[in-house]
Amino acid sequence: MTSSNATHSAAHEATYEFTAPFRAPQGSPIRELFKYVGRPGMISFAGGYPSKDLFDREGLGRALEAAYRDDPIACLQYGDTAGAPRLRQSLARLMAARGVRCEADDIMVTTGSQQGFDLLLRTLIAPGDTALIEEPAYPAAIQALRLAGANIVTVRTDRDGIDVQALAAQLDAWSEANKPKLLYTVPTFANPTGATLPRVRREALVRLAAAHRIVLVEDDPYGELRFSGESVPPMLALAEQCPGARDWIVYFGSLSKIVAPGLRIGWAVAPAAIARRMIVAKQTSDLCTAPLAQETARHYLDSGSLEPHLRSIVGAYRSRCEALLNALTHFAPHDVRFAAPEGGMFVWARLAGGRDAGEILKRAIEQNVMFVPGVAFYVREPDVCSLRLSFAAPSEAEAFEGARRLASALSQG
Amino acid sequence: MTSSNATHSAAHEATYEFTAPFRAPQGSPIRELFKYVGRPGMISFAGGYPSKDLFDREGLGRALEAAYRDDPIACLQYGDTAGAPRLRQSLARLMAARGVRCEADDIMVTTGSQQGFDLLLRTLIAPGDTALIEEPAYPAAIQALRLAGANIVTVRTDRDGIDVQALAAQLDAWSEANKPKLLYTVPTFANPTGATLPRVRREALVRLAAAHRIVLVEDDPYGELRFSGESVPPMLALAEQCPGARDWIVYFGSLSKIVAPGLRIGWAVAPAAIARRMIVAKQTSDLCTAPLAQETARHYLDSGSLEPHLRSIVGAYRSRCEALLNALTHFAPHDVRFAAPEGGMFVWARLAGGRDAGEILKRAIEQNVMFVPGVAFYVREPDVCSLRLSFAAPSEAEAFEGARRLASALSQG
Repeated sequence: MTSSNATHSAAHEATYEFTAPFRAPQGSPIRELFKYVGRPGMISFAGGYPSKDLFDREGLGRALEAAYRDDPIACLQYGDTAGAPRLRQSLARLMAARGVRCEADDIMVTTGSQQGFDLLLRTLIAPGDTALIEEPAYPAAIQALRLAGANIVTVRTDRDGIDVQALAAQLDAWSEANKPKLLYTVPTFANPTGATLPRVRREALVRLAAAHRIVLVEDDPYGELRFSGESVPPMLALAEQCPGARDWIVYFGSLSKIVAPGLRIGWAVAPAAIARRMIVAKQTSDLCTAPLAQETARHYLDSGSLEPHLRSIVGAYRSRCEALLNALTHFAPHDVRFAAPEGGMFVWARLAGGRDAGEILKRAIEQNVMFVPGVAFYVREPDVCSLRLSFAAPSEAEAFEGARRLASALSQG
Repeated sequence: MTSSNATHSAAHEATYEFTAPFRAPQGSPIRELFKYVGRPGMISFAGGYPSKDLFDREGLGRALEAAYRDDPIACLQYGDTAGAPRLRQSLARLMAARGVRCEADDIMVTTGSQQGFDLLLRTLIAPGDTALIEEPAYPAAIQALRLAGANIVTVRTDRDGIDVQALAAQLDAWSEANKPKLLYTVPTFANPTGATLPRVRREALVRLAAAHRIVLVEDDPYGELRFSGESVPPMLALAEQCPGARDWIVYFGSLSKIVAPGLRIGWAVAPAAIARRMIVAKQTSDLCTAPLAQETARHYLDSGSLEPHLRSIVGAYRSRCEALLNALTHFAPHDVRFAAPEGGMFVWARLAGGRDAGEILKRAIEQNVMFVPGVAFYVREPDVCSLRLSFAAPSEAEAFEGARRLASALSQG
């Protein structure tokens, strides 16, 4: 802080008595890469960000203006901890369009879906409790489980997401006393793998969660970004067919990938007993999500702008994904193996020949191209040959050039 | 959630295994009163809200428009977890005006100062750790300590805030092994008492914290709302005179009471080793505070609108406070004892004759007037005769009429 603090910071650290997860905390490994993103000429496949070129600036500008003009006090005053009632109505309609039976009262607005998961962990996970997570997985979910002190157990995935049969066997081996409390998954266009869990597996997973009384966390920020293949309903929708199953599903939605992350608007659909506690936790977390952002989001959703905007960004992501995959096939046909996703923002790849993606990244950065090494997405034993490529930000021309540079970095490896 | 959930909710609650603080969580007792606030004709001295009549709607509207026009991408994209660099600069200037030597890097933006305290507790308080808090105290601070599983020990206050001599004796009695980790206080225009800690006591408290190596939490949302008496520097400023003391102070500021709570903009000034960990905790809490709100706040602060706005609201709060105190003296001279605050939003009062403020509240609500019974502000053994009256929301005429109704409720008691 002050210059004297800075000088003696090592000595000071020793004097504070931090809680266990914060004695030697690690920030997000992906955020460490940020310093290179701004470098002139850098082509980044690293970000998990939506493309800034694709924001609906005009539509959001109109929503912002209308929100403030119509009800400035609602924008400026404290709001309900569970969320602004009118936004909850709009989100309930959005959930209905996703096939989920849902009332406004079933929706809790959160400060990004990140907060939703954090609040859930506070109510369910005491240090030492077991939590399951698909692997590879979204790093901030791993980090949240670590900070909660969870005993993190990974669940195997293949190119279609969670291997439900393997999971069933895993669960049968647990005694009731120390069984896992929850299972976290991004079933549609997963981060980092891009995989989408097929309907049959979803139904089996829902039944499994209900039978074992494990909270199934369905994190769904990318579901509307489908550019090929057939739509698969959220597990929360499929749960209607399995009596009692909905009591074991917590669904997280987000406007970050489909509208704009700067609003920090996420939402949770959780069983009432869990939602009630998450709201109490939210009172001490931030009292309420920024009403200014909530009112803007509501006006945007109610304006009917989301549907055409989604068509536009889905088209762009389709083109960008194709450009990346074509360029990779062209420039590095034998160096990189990957699966083509049906939507979302990510291509998951493996380097041939057992090469370490972290080593390749160093050379790639010299060539002004970036990606995220797979190690960021593993809890303990990473597949060092894996890497994540995001096609969200680079244009088609940049994707082409980026793949060329990547091939060049690989050829040196 | 679904109707079947609602019907069987009691049965369901039993089946989830919640963490200890959430087995029977209690929401904010003050929020329970909200249902009466909207009643036609109700005059509420209950809220801790800034008056909606006093928002700078035009100035904030201009800031909002300018922020979005100048840099829509900054408003819409993810931002730094520590806060937008330009807002941190503006807040550092604001801290300098409060007498605190401070750089932008020393400031961490939080989603309201409520989040700041929550993040601090995550890094410092493990279940069972002792935390000190002034009593009576801000209920959401008590609640945050409860949810963190802290062993909460209260510190005596008088009409000038914390009794530092009593605290010194209390601290001397502790062994090093289980000494308190932190002390929470609102030293200026405290919630609920309105008390302001005199300079001499502040200096003693700063020395005490440094000597005992206890993190002194200075929560300062109301400090700029002074309408009489002489300004007292924040403890963070006074710490400069006491070598090493600044390493033991965490300061929380907020725009909620001086600009608008709907922005959810707070900030923390913490020693570097603590701030670094709070930022890691914030990554999993909400990734970043809403950039749209941060950009708006920055434009507002940089526009020079805050100073005239503060003059305007301080004048209004002065008049409203005087109106309330005069009316109380007129209508209920022997029923209520109170101290006149020098700023802020609250008058702390005691009912004469040992009367229970909770009982009086029931009759008061029948008469269409409200306040918060003191019980909400105590950790264990409440003074049931005490109550908090906020003069922020009612106009002068309403304060007069409200005091009349209150006297009427008292005369029935």
